[in-house]
Amino acid sequence: MADKTLKYWGWGYAEDGLSAADTKSLLATFADGFGINPSRDRAFPTMDAITLPTPKVEAPANLAKISTTDKHDRVVHSFGQSQPDSLRIYNSDFDHVVDVVAYPESNEDIAAIYDWAGDANAAVIPFGGGSSVVGGVTSDVGSKYNGTISVDMTRMNKVLEVDAVSRAARIQGGARGPELEAQLKPHGLTLRHFPQSFEHSTFGGWIATRSGGHFATLYTHIDDLVESTTTVTPVGDIVSRRLPGSGAGPSPDRFIAMGSEGSLGIITEGWARLQGRPTFKATAGFRFADFFDAARAVRAVSQAGLYPANVRIVDGTELKVNGAGDGSFTLMVVSFESADHPVEPWMARAEECCLDAGGVVDVDWRDNPQAHLQGAVGAWRTAFIRMPYNREQLTPRGIISDTFETATTWDAFETFYHAIKDATQTAIRDVTGHDGAVSCRFSHAYPDGPAPYFAFHAPGNADGKAMLEQWQEIKTRCSDALIANGGTITHHHAVGRDHQKWYEQQRPALFGDILSDAKKRLDPKGVLNPGVIVG
Amino acid sequence: MADKTLKYWGWGYAEDGLSAADTKSLLATFADGFGINPSRDRAFPTMDAITLPTPKVEAPANLAKISTTDKHDRVVHSFGQSQPDSLRIYNSDFDHVVDVVAYPESNEDIAAIYDWAGDANAAVIPFGGGSSVVGGVTSDVGSKYNGTISVDMTRMNKVLEVDAVSRAARIQGGARGPELEAQLKPHGLTLRHFPQSFEHSTFGGWIATRSGGHFATLYTHIDDLVESTTTVTPVGDIVSRRLPGSGAGPSPDRFIAMGSEGSLGIITEGWARLQGRPTFKATAGFRFADFFDAARAVRAVSQAGLYPANVRIVDGTELKVNGAGDGSFTLMVVSFESADHPVEPWMARAEECCLDAGGVVDVDWRDNPQAHLQGAVGAWRTAFIRMPYNREQLTPRGIISDTFETATTWDAFETFYHAIKDATQTAIRDVTGHDGAVSCRFSHAYPDGPAPYFAFHAPGNADGKAMLEQWQEIKTRCSDALIANGGTITHHHAVGRDHQKWYEQQRPALFGDILSDAKKRLDPKGVLNPGVIVG
Repeated sequence: MADKTLKYWGWGYAEDGLSAADTKSLLATFADGFGINPSRDRAFPTMDAITLPTPKVEAPANLAKISTTDKHDRVVHSFGQSQPDSLRIYNSDFDHVVDVVAYPESNEDIAAIYDWAGDANAAVIPFGGGSSVVGGVTSDVGSKYNGTISVDMTRMNKVLEVDAVSRAARIQGGARGPELEAQLKPHGLTLRHFPQSFEHSTFGGWIATRSGGHFATLYTHIDDLVESTTTVTPVGDIVSRRLPGSGAGPSPDRFIAMGSEGSLGIITEGWARLQGRPTFKATAGFRFADFFDAARAVRAVSQAGLYPANVRIVDGTELKVNGAGDGSFTLMVVSFESADHPVEPWMARAEECCLDAGGVVDVDWRDNPQAHLQGAVGAWRTAFIRMPYNREQLTPRGIISDTFETATTWDAFETFYHAIKDATQTAIRDVTGHDGAVSCRFSHAYPDGPAPYFAFHAPGNADGKAMLEQWQEIKTRCSDALIANGGTITHHHAVGRDHQKWYEQQRPALFGDILSDAKKRLDPKGVLNPGVIVG
Repeated sequence: MADKTLKYWGWGYAEDGLSAADTKSLLATFADGFGINPSRDRAFPTMDAITLPTPKVEAPANLAKISTTDKHDRVVHSFGQSQPDSLRIYNSDFDHVVDVVAYPESNEDIAAIYDWAGDANAAVIPFGGGSSVVGGVTSDVGSKYNGTISVDMTRMNKVLEVDAVSRAARIQGGARGPELEAQLKPHGLTLRHFPQSFEHSTFGGWIATRSGGHFATLYTHIDDLVESTTTVTPVGDIVSRRLPGSGAGPSPDRFIAMGSEGSLGIITEGWARLQGRPTFKATAGFRFADFFDAARAVRAVSQAGLYPANVRIVDGTELKVNGAGDGSFTLMVVSFESADHPVEPWMARAEECCLDAGGVVDVDWRDNPQAHLQGAVGAWRTAFIRMPYNREQLTPRGIISDTFETATTWDAFETFYHAIKDATQTAIRDVTGHDGAVSCRFSHAYPDGPAPYFAFHAPGNADGKAMLEQWQEIKTRCSDALIANGGTITHHHAVGRDHQKWYEQQRPALFGDILSDAKKRLDPKGVLNPGVIVG
């Protein structure tokens, strides 16, 4: 991995992306299926064409060895993977790039960076894999600071201890998904936390952003997989006790670490719960003519106490966008996994729930270990893996393409869904003058409600700068609708800079005051990730 | 329930308790089994014999209607259900009783009580069912206050809304277990949270103390059953958004409400997740010659991903104390419940885990709906229901009898167990000059570790006052051992006044500072439950 170069204009490594054929097919789907056509085809700026401001702060001698002002490093660390990030790069908007990138190798390095930042009045932006889609690492921190330091955690990427008896490991915050799984594999164990960003996001980043894994129920959120955390703050380290459970006061982990998004400190390590690597698996697919019938099937399975690895619905529009359906049906995917026992009795009962709700078998699970690769299930899965690479093809062609996600209770869901979808469609029409494509799937399901995940695609038909404004207006109206209709501004993408305004509406005001007090206590000079969580 | 009078000298209603035969049998077990003999038999003081100090504060006119200085009310609200509470009552130590008991009927009443308390410099002790075994409601608040007000929440005991679609209900904080279940029953739903204190503890109290339910795995902690909370603080109400899941910043519920134990506010209502009432059930019992083999069986079942309703071991000493065994074997109880599907495949696999670890069937689950009433399983269950009534028989006879509970990881368990048990036995010998009985069971089990629950019984052989000192010395040495050996000072009993010293050792110091800041923000006059959580 060390040999590969990260792309600065999009997802992943420079050598990875859509094939020419995949790009052609994606564009054809947009054009033929939704009347969304490219308005131009101008590439992202080349690295040679990019000019950066001179660094405004300089690493002190004790940090020089782990710091760089390399141009590629500065660009890569100044943006996440959001639609506006993509547009800013496309627009050569590099006014706010970070000045220095530091690669700490120890808690002491981080403490030294804080000291430097405090003295220099520089903002510190913790950087895991840089996969934020909500402006969590976007380096526009306002005019109060003399400079910005990106703290790249990826040199702290070790699994330090494995406790095979308790099935737990002590993992450094900068370990990316593949790295930590590779270190766990010899022990026959897995963290089994697979967010879509898995390849380019880190253990510490997952905790800081309350990451949701690929699985739909039960132990999928990183919150529930963490035994303890170590957070390095500007005034000292906060180390919680490693425990399988505790009722001693409010949870320190769930305040200091989980959801603090780098505003209170940097999570340098934690003990995490592991699982055996699953050997028993079953996947089934069902088609529903009606989206809400499919939603009812998810509810039935979620309330049955079966705890499937997945129970996901994908609506006709999302299937069509991804070449996995013609738009006439909703797909439901149900899967079970176990490292311990065959899962047939579980799957058989889940299938009954799906059939009862009007589902028709798309892919049969019986004696079918390849089920996850077949039918609409397999087609959507293939597209899902490619999805992060789509944007770098769409931004240069003037096509807005973004997602947002939320959660609501089952009683409210139908009304909620219509309100959000209508707000998104209306916003796209008002802003672009054209219809867009708006789709919905469930990313996670709870006994008391789903986590709906919306995607929208629209013809920008504007230059890059105007396209950013178009996106902002659509985003604002979608976010307003989420809050007005009782949803959360984010279920697992996190708050970042992009959601901060709505997060402040959502959270109780007095709790916001408590967070501000905590920020003053732990980060008295206010250098940590300004504008995120604590405004 | 309204017609029944609460006992002031022990658990439950005045009319309930051990039968004469049960008492005789309990005393015989202690004497014959462990050489623990009564040193006296003097009764608790009668109500007529009790003299209370004149109330030091008086309710203002706007609160007169919901306030009382009735003697029985004041005594009942000044103590919880701990061993030292029992001894203080026995010793007629009523110097620190509450001055007034207020029964708020609305959030506005609570705000008015705060105003009164702030003006009068009176401490406010929130009181749910009064079941605290850790001094959470014990009214000794130090000399800083001019008086003490107990806020009894049990008039706010309604289920306000039921959402049968999402399976959730909005429940007032003062609803006791039987009350809230009775209101949910017509909807075919249950909160399914059954702490041993169920009959005399409240929904708000469960949240404030992070209560653990009767069930051993998965959705058993109240923390995981709560969608949202309303907490009334001296500076305003904190209302979180009702959501099945959210990743928007640190969880307000898990800081303001869960684990705050009345130090930051009073939880007046919350939305809770419900379940269908289980119709499929199976219970099995296994005997193990070796306690650690049984522990390994619990680990195997917990790591198998089966999520049993119960997976509990009870050691030979606890079985013997409760007349459910001769001390030669450890009992393991495994049960599954579902409202949706037969549980045989789950139970069959759990049974394999138990037999593999060396278990021998005590009660067979097959075609046996009465399994939970049979064999050692049934005998221990009967004793378990009676347990809270034992102390009122033992305190007057000079027998110390108490429990404490903790959690640790599986890798550490055997060493941990020996260290704690040895510390307890040695403390009893040093303090009383006699051997005691020290037992252990698991109350909850996680994939990464158990929650061991210890009980100890010792011949006090001293007058009531000296017996309190004996208890305190034993408690101190057990608590020191828990902290020194990496455990938590409490897994589900809460912190209260009795654990505060060790809680402060356990929690990260900077997190303690943050809690102090939050206390100053929400309770600027420092009236709420002094000495608990925030020192």
